[in-house]
Amino acid sequence: MDRYYMKLAMRVAERSRGKCSPNPFVGAVIVNGGKIVAEGNTQPYGSDHAEIVAIKAAGNKCKGSTMYVSMEPCCIYGKTPPCTDAIIKAGIKRVVVGIMDPNPLVSGNGIKALQEAGIQVEHGFFAEEITEQLEYYIFSVQYRRPFVIWKSALSLDGKYSASDGSSKWISNPASRKHVHRVRAQVDVVLAGIKSVAHDDAMLNARGLRSANQPLRVILDPSLDIALSSKLVASAEDFPAMILYHLASEDKIKALQDKGLQLRQVAGNKDELDLKAVMAALYEMKLNSVLLETGNRLSEAFWKAKLVDKCMIFYGNMILGGEKSVLRHYDRHNVDRAVQLERIKVKKLQDNILITGYPLL
Amino acid sequence: MDRYYMKLAMRVAERSRGKCSPNPFVGAVIVNGGKIVAEGNTQPYGSDHAEIVAIKAAGNKCKGSTMYVSMEPCCIYGKTPPCTDAIIKAGIKRVVVGIMDPNPLVSGNGIKALQEAGIQVEHGFFAEEITEQLEYYIFSVQYRRPFVIWKSALSLDGKYSASDGSSKWISNPASRKHVHRVRAQVDVVLAGIKSVAHDDAMLNARGLRSANQPLRVILDPSLDIALSSKLVASAEDFPAMILYHLASEDKIKALQDKGLQLRQVAGNKDELDLKAVMAALYEMKLNSVLLETGNRLSEAFWKAKLVDKCMIFYGNMILGGEKSVLRHYDRHNVDRAVQLERIKVKKLQDNILITGYPLL
Repeated sequence: MDRYYMKLAMRVAERSRGKCSPNPFVGAVIVNGGKIVAEGNTQPYGSDHAEIVAIKAAGNKCKGSTMYVSMEPCCIYGKTPPCTDAIIKAGIKRVVVGIMDPNPLVSGNGIKALQEAGIQVEHGFFAEEITEQLEYYIFSVQYRRPFVIWKSALSLDGKYSASDGSSKWISNPASRKHVHRVRAQVDVVLAGIKSVAHDDAMLNARGLRSANQPLRVILDPSLDIALSSKLVASAEDFPAMILYHLASEDKIKALQDKGLQLRQVAGNKDELDLKAVMAALYEMKLNSVLLETGNRLSEAFWKAKLVDKCMIFYGNMILGGEKSVLRHYDRHNVDRAVQLERIKVKKLQDNILITGYPLL
Repeated sequence: MDRYYMKLAMRVAERSRGKCSPNPFVGAVIVNGGKIVAEGNTQPYGSDHAEIVAIKAAGNKCKGSTMYVSMEPCCIYGKTPPCTDAIIKAGIKRVVVGIMDPNPLVSGNGIKALQEAGIQVEHGFFAEEITEQLEYYIFSVQYRRPFVIWKSALSLDGKYSASDGSSKWISNPASRKHVHRVRAQVDVVLAGIKSVAHDDAMLNARGLRSANQPLRVILDPSLDIALSSKLVASAEDFPAMILYHLASEDKIKALQDKGLQLRQVAGNKDELDLKAVMAALYEMKLNSVLLETGNRLSEAFWKAKLVDKCMIFYGNMILGGEKSVLRHYDRHNVDRAVQLERIKVKKLQDNILITGYPLL
């Protein structure tokens, strides 16, 4: 039954996906006498972790129970006190842990703290699945930068637009809805100034019930963004930040007055240093980025090896023409191609979504 | 139960896929007293149709039985006598027909002949599925040319080769095996002289048990093919034909001596008239063509609106570079894109196969 309850804890965790960053979204289930007595999932940053939610819900049914939790309970003071203390105090007898916390301050120490209090601990359940479930968090802890997802919408022949520049609508409504769902699950949606200017895109999450809104980040080296753009106009309603390199005080002031955050990063007047961009986002505790970049900026991310996951939507059409995606990111020979692993495919009505992880 | 037995007849038909062209591969099931007493599938061209195979197998159990047959029984003398006569003579009481034969000499007349003999007939079962199952046959009867399948093997970013011209192996072994399976199900595998020269391709069906071998057809306007090529060398073992426009008597003779069929068609020294190519193949009763053409010849088929089905294999890699498929087949605007309908997707290990039908 341990595997059954752990699967349940993983499903419970999904309720918090995109809603508790920068904390990992964890699920906890408390079982006593063969019965599920409580479930808990991580609350928004600064509020209760999954374990605490479950313990509070179970009340005195915690005594002698087993807790299933998808990631190792914390043993440190962050925004909240250590979960291990609460577990010990509640009288839980046994704790089954999915994966260890990759955070070196916790990793293994949470389990140790429980064991030292006489609690029986087991761990290592569904390691692969939970590692993928929490990939944004785990990656950012390990590599000290946000996890980057490259999204692209292509015709079946790999064109991101027709030769006249038109690209509405290569994707169907089901694909577009899927994109909005992903936007609601990441910390940042990132685009370059050129695509914002070209599409007058909003980049927020729309058409969903109670969607979390990502921070919209625009790379705009010389601060060329139009004050009349939808993105600027919507800054009071949906958070937005512009990363720039050089700009006039007037423009900076005007944008700040509209409610935008501004931040200067290394680069030149034409492009920003993408590693500096990542460092700035990481410093702000933003651990996942969805790239909704045009072709040139996409190529720059690939060249900088800053793509951790691909999400390619194929519309059911042939476009032809020269607007072939990533054409300047030339791998020269098949032997030097970027391989993708853990390929998954999803049919979205007559569109296809292929996801995979590049080995860069 | 009618639907159940018709599904069975459709499955029985699959045994003859690729093995009885130019006849459609049909399945028949005879049921008597609630029991399946015989099955039959179309035999190679000139031999028994499915109905006759089943009637012979059932023997005197035909009396008072019901026959399920995926396509209307023929009522004309072709290479064999009319199936309707045999059904009437066998004493079959009821015939359930999937779809009508699109051949105007038969269409509806087979059913009429049975009804006039007092047999109860029903038809119109799984019309969509059987129409797709027999798409090569039905298309070629309706449009008086072979059904053309465009096959392509691409990276996820839509490149058919790396920029240095290398393309081995964009597809994985599972994809390549699938291609060999398709080759064994079509009448013709077609390529241009350039890709034969570049890859020294054999184009036969390999790695399968008892594979039907397609006719290999090479479009070679000036008869440039090397006598030393694998394709020429294998002509005694696997049928091969070269379509050309202008050539020396010596070269024609040399190739004929090696066992190749040759046929002159309209065109010029650089390219053949693709409509003339189709007409030549249709005249030879070849009703399905798998295009294994390079990019330029593929574009010519698209421009001539001679693509009836797409079969695109995506390897799990990003290649970049300028070798973007169909780039000269420019649709200019998204509104003019070629839409594909009836999209299907199949995972072949870490490769993806997408199929669909272009609306040209």
